[in-house]
Amino acid sequence: MKKLKKKSLFIVGSGPGDPELLTLKAHKAIKNAQVILFDNLINEEILKLAPKNCIKHYVGKHPYGEYVPQEEINALILQYCAQYDRVLRLKGGDPYLFGRGFEEWLTVRDQGIDVIYIPGISSMQGAGLNDIPLTHRGISEGVWALTGMKKDGSLSADLPLAVQSRSTVVIYMGMRKLDEIARTYVLYGRGDTPAAVIQHASLPQQRQVTCKVKDLVRACRQQGLGHPAIIVIGDVVSLQQAETLAASEQYRQIGGQ
Amino acid sequence: MKKLKKKSLFIVGSGPGDPELLTLKAHKAIKNAQVILFDNLINEEILKLAPKNCIKHYVGKHPYGEYVPQEEINALILQYCAQYDRVLRLKGGDPYLFGRGFEEWLTVRDQGIDVIYIPGISSMQGAGLNDIPLTHRGISEGVWALTGMKKDGSLSADLPLAVQSRSTVVIYMGMRKLDEIARTYVLYGRGDTPAAVIQHASLPQQRQVTCKVKDLVRACRQQGLGHPAIIVIGDVVSLQQAETLAASEQYRQIGGQ
Repeated sequence: MKKLKKKSLFIVGSGPGDPELLTLKAHKAIKNAQVILFDNLINEEILKLAPKNCIKHYVGKHPYGEYVPQEEINALILQYCAQYDRVLRLKGGDPYLFGRGFEEWLTVRDQGIDVIYIPGISSMQGAGLNDIPLTHRGISEGVWALTGMKKDGSLSADLPLAVQSRSTVVIYMGMRKLDEIARTYVLYGRGDTPAAVIQHASLPQQRQVTCKVKDLVRACRQQGLGHPAIIVIGDVVSLQQAETLAASEQYRQIGGQ
Repeated sequence: MKKLKKKSLFIVGSGPGDPELLTLKAHKAIKNAQVILFDNLINEEILKLAPKNCIKHYVGKHPYGEYVPQEEINALILQYCAQYDRVLRLKGGDPYLFGRGFEEWLTVRDQGIDVIYIPGISSMQGAGLNDIPLTHRGISEGVWALTGMKKDGSLSADLPLAVQSRSTVVIYMGMRKLDEIARTYVLYGRGDTPAAVIQHASLPQQRQVTCKVKDLVRACRQQGLGHPAIIVIGDVVSLQQAETLAASEQYRQIGGQ
C-alpha cells in the first residue's frame, strides 16, 4: 500500500456481498484499516478481512425502521479521522450509486483529509449473476437505475419516463413501492413487461421472483420476498427465462423430467 | 479456485483499466486461464497477470474502423473451448453493461460448457474517481446509461426521454454523436446542463473535459478529446466543480496562486 502523506478516509464499495467480488484495491484498504464504519447488509466475511485491532463501528442505516442519522455518521467520521490515519467507510454496492458516499466526502473535504473513493460492483450488476444482462443488443438500449426512496420517502418521479423507454429499468430501495411501480406500467400499457426481484445476489441465500410487472405485488407476497432487493424490469428478463426453458428442454432431452 | 467439473468459459469484466480495480474473483480467473480472448482497451498490466503459457488472442472490436466481427469471436470461443478447459473472455468495464457478453454466453449455452460471469466496475463508475458521483440526494434521482452506438450505428432513441429526467445521463460509445446529443439538450431547453467527458478513468493517462452540454463539440475539439470516452451529463458534474473551486480557494488561502 502506497505510503499516505496524511489522514485518509477511504470510501469503499463492498459490492453485492460475495467477498470475492471486492476489488483488489478495496481488499487491500480493508486489510489496512484502523477503523471501519459499516452499514447493515455488509457481509461478515468481509469485515473479518480487517486487522484484529481494527475498530468496527456499525452505523446501520436502512430505509425502514431504526437508523443512525447521516449527520451522526458524518460526525463519527470526523471524530475517528481526528484520532486515526486510516478510516474506512464501507458500503454495500458502490458508494456513489445510491450510496450517499459523496455526502460523506463533502463532510471531510475542508478538513485536510485525503479521500480515496474505491468503486464497488453495484447491486444491479447482481442481475448478471442470475443470467439477466442489463443490456442486450436489439432488446435494450441502456439501463436506467432509479431510487425508490427519495429524501422525502417517495419513488423517483422519473418512473413514467423510464416506463416509456427502450432501456432496462432497475429500481433500488423500491420494495415498498411495488404497487405504485406496477400501476405506473399498467397505466402506460406495459403491464406485461417481464420483471425480476433479486435479493442477496452473489450470496448462498440469494432469492429471485420473476413475473410480469403487473403481478409484482402478488408474486412477491406469495414468495415472502421483501426489502432488501432490487427490481429489474425489461425484456432482458425474458432472456433468463429463455435460458431456463432451454436448460429444462436440454434436461428433458438427456432423460430428465 | 474451486475444482470445475467441466469445460468453463469465464466472461470477465476487467473494469475501467487500473488492475487494482479487478475483483478478486476476476484476478484469480485470469491467473488460472489457459486461453484469454481480449478486446482492445484492455490494460497490458492485466494481461501480464495470466500464466506464461496462457494463449492471449486479441479480438479487438471498436465502434469505428477495423474490427473482428462478433460471429468470428463466437466461433473462436467455441474452437478454444473444444481444446481447453478454462477459456476466459476479457472485456473492458462490465460484460453485461454494453459489453455484448451475453451474446457470447448464448453462443455456448447449448454446448455443455459452464459459463461463469464475473462482473466488473463499469466505465461510468470512473466518474467517481473524478469526484463526480453518479447520484446525489436532492440533485439526481438515478442514473441512465445509454448507448451511443446501436446495432445500426445510431444513438439510443431514449435520449429525448433522458433529457427530461431528473437522473444523471451517461452515454457510452457516443463520442461521434456529440453534436446530436448537444442539439437534443438544447431542443428541450437544457443546453446549460453541466457535462463531463472522461477518458481512461483510473489510469495515469486519464483526461477530462468539463463544459455545458451545448458546448460539448467545441470543448472536445479544442482539447483534442475523442473516442474512447464516456459522457456524463447532469447537475452532479457541478459537484466536482464546486470541489475544484473549493480546492483552489483553499490553495489561494494557503499562499498559492
